[in-house]
Amino acid sequence: MLKVDVITTGGTIEKIYSEQTSTVENLDNQIDRDLGRLRLPDCDVRVVPLMNKDSLEMTNVDRTAILEIIEQRLSDCSAIVITHGTDTMVQTGLHLKQALPELKVPIVLTGAMTPLGFEGSDGLQNLTESLFAIRLLGPGIYVVMHNQAFPIDRVKKDRETSRFVWID
Amino acid sequence: MLKVDVITTGGTIEKIYSEQTSTVENLDNQIDRDLGRLRLPDCDVRVVPLMNKDSLEMTNVDRTAILEIIEQRLSDCSAIVITHGTDTMVQTGLHLKQALPELKVPIVLTGAMTPLGFEGSDGLQNLTESLFAIRLLGPGIYVVMHNQAFPIDRVKKDRETSRFVWID
Amino acid sequence: MLKVDVITTGGTIEKIYSEQTSTVENLDNQIDRDLGRLRLPDCDVRVVPLMNKDSLEMTNVDRTAILEIIEQRLSDCSAIVITHGTDTMVQTGLHLKQALPELKVPIVLTGAMTPLGFEGSDGLQNLTESLFAIRLLGPGIYVVMHNQAFPIDRVKKDRETSRFVWID
Amino acid sequence: MLKVDVITTGGTIEKIYSEQTSTVENLDNQIDRDLGRLRLPDCDVRVVPLMNKDSLEMTNVDRTAILEIIEQRLSDCSAIVITHGTDTMVQTGLHLKQALPELKVPIVLTGAMTPLGFEGSDGLQNLTESLFAIRLLGPGIYVVMHNQAFPIDRVKKDRETSRFVWID
Repeated sequence: MLKVDVITTGGTIEKIYSEQTSTVENLDNQIDRDLGRLRLPDCDVRVVPLMNKDSLEMTNVDRTAILEIIEQRLSDCSAIVITHGTDTMVQTGLHLKQALPELKVPIVLTGAMTPLGFEGSDGLQNLTESLFAIRLLGPGIYVVMHNQAFPIDRVKKDRETSRFVWID
Repeated sequence: MLKVDVITTGGTIEKIYSEQTSTVENLDNQIDRDLGRLRLPDCDVRVVPLMNKDSLEMTNVDRTAILEIIEQRLSDCSAIVITHGTDTMVQTGLHLKQALPELKVPIVLTGAMTPLGFEGSDGLQNLTESLFAIRLLGPGIYVVMHNQAFPIDRVKKDRETSRFVWID
Repeated sequence: MLKVDVITTGGTIEKIYSEQTSTVENLDNQIDRDLGRLRLPDCDVRVVPLMNKDSLEMTNVDRTAILEIIEQRLSDCSAIVITHGTDTMVQTGLHLKQALPELKVPIVLTGAMTPLGFEGSDGLQNLTESLFAIRLLGPGIYVVMHNQAFPIDRVKKDRETSRFVWID
Repeated sequence: MLKVDVITTGGTIEKIYSEQTSTVENLDNQIDRDLGRLRLPDCDVRVVPLMNKDSLEMTNVDRTAILEIIEQRLSDCSAIVITHGTDTMVQTGLHLKQALPELKVPIVLTGAMTPLGFEGSDGLQNLTESLFAIRLLGPGIYVVMHNQAFPIDRVKKDRETSRFVWID
């Protein structure tokens, strides 16, 4: 049985539509319910809701909080998935890479371009891929999105096409 | 065979999530596709895309355009459904009531609190009800939302509860 | 506040796919959850699960049970919706019409051609329409399906086109 | 750009509900449309509809047809996904393993316990995982289902729990 922590931080993947403000907002952890739609018979997933932030508003204090929760949980699980806004996902990943040089498990950052529960959302695809990727990837920090796994120092977001692309 | 025109004007019901701006926007007519999900074997529906506006931005010029298209179409159809933002739906309806004193068919205004295609949307429910209501309602102008048909001069939006309520 | 009883009897609308048998079956009441997707702010709906039968297997004993539960509930509610298999829906409705000559409220029979929760299902449309119809229809027994309300003695199922049609 | 062939053979994943027979049937290729829901920006997927069979009815002639199409396509693509009924998926996979001893790419067999488009379907999850798996798996024949990749000679279906499990 694979033990996985899914640490949630907000970002588009967890945004919901607010009828009061007529906008999309990060109000609460939304990952739990969508994980319930996946069949994961040999996977013990623990969701750890950490914060509900648009990643453009994420600060160094927030990144330190992510690092601390990872350090606490690393000894107890075989892999970690972090759901995160796409705009600063790579920045957070590089921060973790520097702080965790001796990593013995895969850590996957993922998110979505369109929120979970909105038509055309890529959120469930990315969650599905991330939870699958941690079974096959070696130790290291990755972005998993849209059918691809990128080592964290080889990837950037391309805003125009709403996807991640390789860098040299 | 009932002939119905569905005039679309924008509003929340037609908003979509834009990955470029990370906001919800009125970009295009969205009603067509959702009508295709309904079984309407004895109903000849024509969708008339008129504008794509948040109803808070609707002007008198826009309301005159709605009135003109109705006047053009009235002789040719048995009922009219107008999809419209909820914030000024009643205002538009009262404008139509004043301008159309001799109405011989039902005109139904409807919309949604959460856009079509977003989880928890009330859009398809309201479309379903509106297309059903025109078979049973007499001539006049109505708001049909959330299981109820309100004559236009008996209704207001209650923003706090995201619904329409009766007024005396 | 409108008080409505929804009496569930099985039929296609409540069928689910069984992974054990690879067939669709009537195992349990499925209406509750789908009603929860509708916004019914001025409607007090009580679901009364009565039986889980394919309507081709419905017997006179079953129809008597439906009649008895209606007679018990009639004094306490403003309208009744019965979810029922489409194959013998009209037969059950005619049975009720004969047994309830002094009816003072509308009773609507509805169902689906494709089960709730299956892509392309008409179940939620028919439920939406039925709960709306009882607000506008007078006393009597009706089939409400696919955007139409049929008095029970004017309707039959057309198997070939998967719809209900008028009879003289 | 990864070139992948998705060979479709029927099975539960492609079953649809027939309103005429009130049963689920293999009538047509259903994979195309669901692939369209996935974001695969660096993946060139070609769907090859081969047959529409319940896998319990699959014969040796059918398995030879699958082998032949694979042999034709192998030189032209980087990986192959085969959608297949779960009951004889392993049997087909073992047949392919024996016939293709020098395989240089991964071949993934996948399917579903509940058809695509039915509530609670695992079909899209399994497709998502299979298209991701072929990027990370080495040459060989695998079953990919429910968050796991099994080498074909290490897996069997467990009917009671509707999943695949390891064998020694």
